[in-house]
Amino acid sequence: MVTFEQMWRDLEPLGRDPTSAGYRRAPFAAAERECVDWYVEEARRRGLDVEWDGQGNAVAWWSPSPVADAPASSARAAESAASHPAAAATLSGNKGSASERRPTSGDILIGSHLDSVDNGGAFDGPLGVASSFAAIDILRNQSFRPTRRIGVAMFVEEEGSRFGIACLGSRLATGQLRPQEAAELRDRHGVFLLDAMAEAGIEPHLGPSPLLRDVAEFVELHVEQGRDLVHRNRAVAVASVSWAHGRWRFDFTGQANHAGATPMQDRQDPMLTYAMTALAANKQARLADSRATFGRVAVQPNVTNAVPERVQAWLDARSADATSLDALVESIVRQATERADRDGTSLEVTAESVSPTVEFDRPLAQQLSKILDGAPVIATGAGHDAGILQLAGIPSAMLFVRNPTGISHSPEERAEMADCLAGVAALARVLEGLAA
Amino acid sequence: MVTFEQMWRDLEPLGRDPTSAGYRRAPFAAAERECVDWYVEEARRRGLDVEWDGQGNAVAWWSPSPVADAPASSARAAESAASHPAAAATLSGNKGSASERRPTSGDILIGSHLDSVDNGGAFDGPLGVASSFAAIDILRNQSFRPTRRIGVAMFVEEEGSRFGIACLGSRLATGQLRPQEAAELRDRHGVFLLDAMAEAGIEPHLGPSPLLRDVAEFVELHVEQGRDLVHRNRAVAVASVSWAHGRWRFDFTGQANHAGATPMQDRQDPMLTYAMTALAANKQARLADSRATFGRVAVQPNVTNAVPERVQAWLDARSADATSLDALVESIVRQATERADRDGTSLEVTAESVSPTVEFDRPLAQQLSKILDGAPVIATGAGHDAGILQLAGIPSAMLFVRNPTGISHSPEERAEMADCLAGVAALARVLEGLAA
Repeated sequence: MVTFEQMWRDLEPLGRDPTSAGYRRAPFAAAERECVDWYVEEARRRGLDVEWDGQGNAVAWWSPSPVADAPASSARAAESAASHPAAAATLSGNKGSASERRPTSGDILIGSHLDSVDNGGAFDGPLGVASSFAAIDILRNQSFRPTRRIGVAMFVEEEGSRFGIACLGSRLATGQLRPQEAAELRDRHGVFLLDAMAEAGIEPHLGPSPLLRDVAEFVELHVEQGRDLVHRNRAVAVASVSWAHGRWRFDFTGQANHAGATPMQDRQDPMLTYAMTALAANKQARLADSRATFGRVAVQPNVTNAVPERVQAWLDARSADATSLDALVESIVRQATERADRDGTSLEVTAESVSPTVEFDRPLAQQLSKILDGAPVIATGAGHDAGILQLAGIPSAMLFVRNPTGISHSPEERAEMADCLAGVAALARVLEGLAA
Repeated sequence: MVTFEQMWRDLEPLGRDPTSAGYRRAPFAAAERECVDWYVEEARRRGLDVEWDGQGNAVAWWSPSPVADAPASSARAAESAASHPAAAATLSGNKGSASERRPTSGDILIGSHLDSVDNGGAFDGPLGVASSFAAIDILRNQSFRPTRRIGVAMFVEEEGSRFGIACLGSRLATGQLRPQEAAELRDRHGVFLLDAMAEAGIEPHLGPSPLLRDVAEFVELHVEQGRDLVHRNRAVAVASVSWAHGRWRFDFTGQANHAGATPMQDRQDPMLTYAMTALAANKQARLADSRATFGRVAVQPNVTNAVPERVQAWLDARSADATSLDALVESIVRQATERADRDGTSLEVTAESVSPTVEFDRPLAQQLSKILDGAPVIATGAGHDAGILQLAGIPSAMLFVRNPTGISHSPEERAEMADCLAGVAALARVLEGLAA
């Protein structure tokens, strides 16, 4: 079988910018599609059945199979014969052990996503997918026979880097984003989501995903996006909560004018309103022990010798709880509005996506920590597909792998190979614990 | 002959954005090339000979022609027979009258440019070109016979909107920009200047232009980019000086990182350094009675959920004199550098183009004001091809046409038809005065 190291070498060149060494794997575009081809090929190598849903999410299934030397083979045989996952789940429903696991039936999902932010890191997403295949390899080498179906998931547009909504694939799959709303999304070049999908060979049929119908647990392995594990001197952790977070678009509108001929006092310059807002957001986030970032800006007409007509800027804000997040965004909007009055500009704020605090399934997290000999359970400021599934009522958990730089969404994102392999081993033990 | 109104109607749809009603006439691209086709057709209609130089600048020449009823016909006949402009200039060199005009030989250039900033106005540039054709029509209708060649010029990339250097065509034509330097220029999509030119059907041969070899005077008519004429209740003015101005690129570099997972105190966010710099530039310009604008920004990677790695921003700064301009830019750079230290970011500043104060040829300006019955002589904060030719030693002047909004580089740019026609009439009188 292809080792984790080899899988990583195969993924490394896909979508890598030769200058920055960062990754440009925008969803439904060439480089990300090469990653999807890689995923399909790895599944094929392992004899896993790949199933797709109408937004391009996929799961590569490892189904329990009857073998002569396996115990409880009669039930397993009946289960594997059932082609419908719901049937399989029903059949496996009464094989619960006496362990502390709660669900003892239904599918176990692992995996992550393959897209990246523009000029992002190698690990955010693909680490979880490659680790999932490698964990299955470990279990098979140990002749482990799962009692339940295990699926390696690949969710599309997790970063929201192209269509502006993070976790687009899992939101649609869980019914947390209406298909009509998604159908109106366009990328920066005006390409509609559905057209981008069609161009990638997907026959779009947006909406709740049959892939998730019988999923009882989701465990997403992910590179840590911070240095908590560095400080703890540990390779792997389990997630506790994901902060409340969201994206707000600020449309600052002024009056385009000649940069040379227009006296300063005659201007209505939205760049000034924006600039002050970016500084205010930073200050408010510091005061509130929260996070606020303006990382994306679009200026019209964006030429050197014209006062801009419009500045669009996207606020990414996060807080431990939804109340703090609301207060943070309110304070930023209030300061921006006051400044707009002084600048003679106007401001419109649109919430593009807002996610509440997600507390990952606590019994599941505790179970994982126990399986991993007391791995730390830590919070994250980042959003993930696992958070979306958790919100949809699917008990979900995350494993984080140490990142020595703590940096993510950047070419500087790192994980040592030894830690990656520790993550793979941890994931294998978790599966063993859940699916024995 | 095609009237000014008709010419304006023909130009109006070219490159106009149906939504904003602004113009997108980037140099060497489709819409601007349609304007160039229009220019060639208008020249053809009038029997003017269009000559090109190696950067795509053109002049449509109206050459003195021998006629039975004209005086001094022998010299004129010899002159018109000479195909080389230098020969023509030599031949016409001793026909000076006793008027107060200083040059009485050499070509008279009028005209302007056809490109626009992105989403710019209809008048900035094309008004000068269309008015030039219309002024020639007036003179011909009056059976005026010029003693000197009159050329309607069309300079390329005046706005610098595509390759970043304002007055690119006239700078190259006058030897104020080295061809090697220009050959390295790329647009935002990485297209080299020479390739853009070649794609537009120009065989590039950058450098000093034979078109200007015998130009003795240049008069550029332009829409006013301010409201001085509104306040003076006049339709037309003559330019006195053009402020010192330039473009500086500020490269703010920080550390890309995850917007959610990175604590505020661990960031090196170049957006903050930029934001503070934009506010500082505004404040310093107000204090110094100067102008400073950040109208163009490029963010890397420019995604909502990442702290940017780099923010590039272009400062457009202008002052009445070069010393004030230097002091202004220095103060902005100093404040930006101090802030970068605090933000943990770095800053590099590159002067992309700097132009000294241009005092337009004073005797010529006085002569024009006198011809126009005491038209006001006013300063401008904008740069123009006429300023570049003046710096190159070609006595140059400008006529400004009233702009009721005072707004330019915007769809809101305006000029009343009556004022446009007053401008045409003024230009005709100026030519009559200079070329009689």
